[in-house]
Amino acid sequence: MQTWRVLNRTVLLDASPWLRVSCEHVHLPNGHEIPDFYRVEMPEWAQVFAVDEHQRVMMIEQYKHGPGVMSLELPAGYLDAGEDPATAARRELLEETGLEASAWRYLGRYFVDGNRGCGTAHIFLALGARQVIAPQREASELIEQHWLTLVEVRTAWLGGRITNLGTLGAVGLALAVLEDTP
Amino acid sequence: MQTWRVLNRTVLLDASPWLRVSCEHVHLPNGHEIPDFYRVEMPEWAQVFAVDEHQRVMMIEQYKHGPGVMSLELPAGYLDAGEDPATAARRELLEETGLEASAWRYLGRYFVDGNRGCGTAHIFLALGARQVIAPQREASELIEQHWLTLVEVRTAWLGGRITNLGTLGAVGLALAVLEDTP
Repeated sequence: MQTWRVLNRTVLLDASPWLRVSCEHVHLPNGHEIPDFYRVEMPEWAQVFAVDEHQRVMMIEQYKHGPGVMSLELPAGYLDAGEDPATAARRELLEETGLEASAWRYLGRYFVDGNRGCGTAHIFLALGARQVIAPQREASELIEQHWLTLVEVRTAWLGGRITNLGTLGAVGLALAVLEDTP
Repeated sequence: MQTWRVLNRTVLLDASPWLRVSCEHVHLPNGHEIPDFYRVEMPEWAQVFAVDEHQRVMMIEQYKHGPGVMSLELPAGYLDAGEDPATAARRELLEETGLEASAWRYLGRYFVDGNRGCGTAHIFLALGARQVIAPQREASELIEQHWLTLVEVRTAWLGGRITNLGTLGAVGLALAVLEDTP
């Protein structure tokens, strides 16, 4: 693999654990150099496509301050320090929605931005989801829960109602995996 | 819509046009306040799922320095200042691969990170793609082009070979739109 070589790295902003920005002087395999390539380190997060026994999917509608819009999303959240993705997925599903699931399948890890980094997303498919407790939300989480049928999710996905790029990727992948699973 | 109110915003790092980081003091509809909510402004970009007359898809394999891996991606790039997404999509497809397409369909705009922002992705489906010139690449673009059949793309997508979250979302959406189109 022809990787880039980092000749020098300077941390410009450290707001850990949320954000750390560095500037790198990089050397490319073809001899070209870029003196100011920016890297943005952000926490890893997990998102869960949770399906219940009636083949309904738990989605949440929530204001997202990044784009400043209401957004239709999957239950998701940052990994705690030292936490593995599967544990974070279970915890976030339980905290945000009060659900547990009987079967879990890992659909992979994905980088958010090819140039800057911007964290890593872990996608999970959870089957046999059922309500076990009331949601335990943080004060910043103003959430509406919706059980959608698979057809409703597919319609929302194809109809432009899912505007979060990460949710778009997870929903499409989970729907296809479910279709392929006997 | 219950939006958050920004009481104060401080720019912490300005590396425009690539990156601008701010810290916001925000007031939530439930009275809760967050004194240090970080916003990361990054450029918008366009990515293109380009299909030729033989129903093959142009994908590119490229080292991405953010995650430090070789990545299977769609032709994509940042919008120039003042450029509209459709123009950028046509330009990037031509520059990166030398292709033009006869029919274009816009599959929507998607925010990259719900909390921080981190830019906006525009997804395009381009049909009737054909080689018109040699690629006109920048010195930093070390790219291998691959024509993949729709089945090969779907296999790569479901098999975990597409590890860029944005590419994951675009590929899944484009494949479904193509399946739904008579």
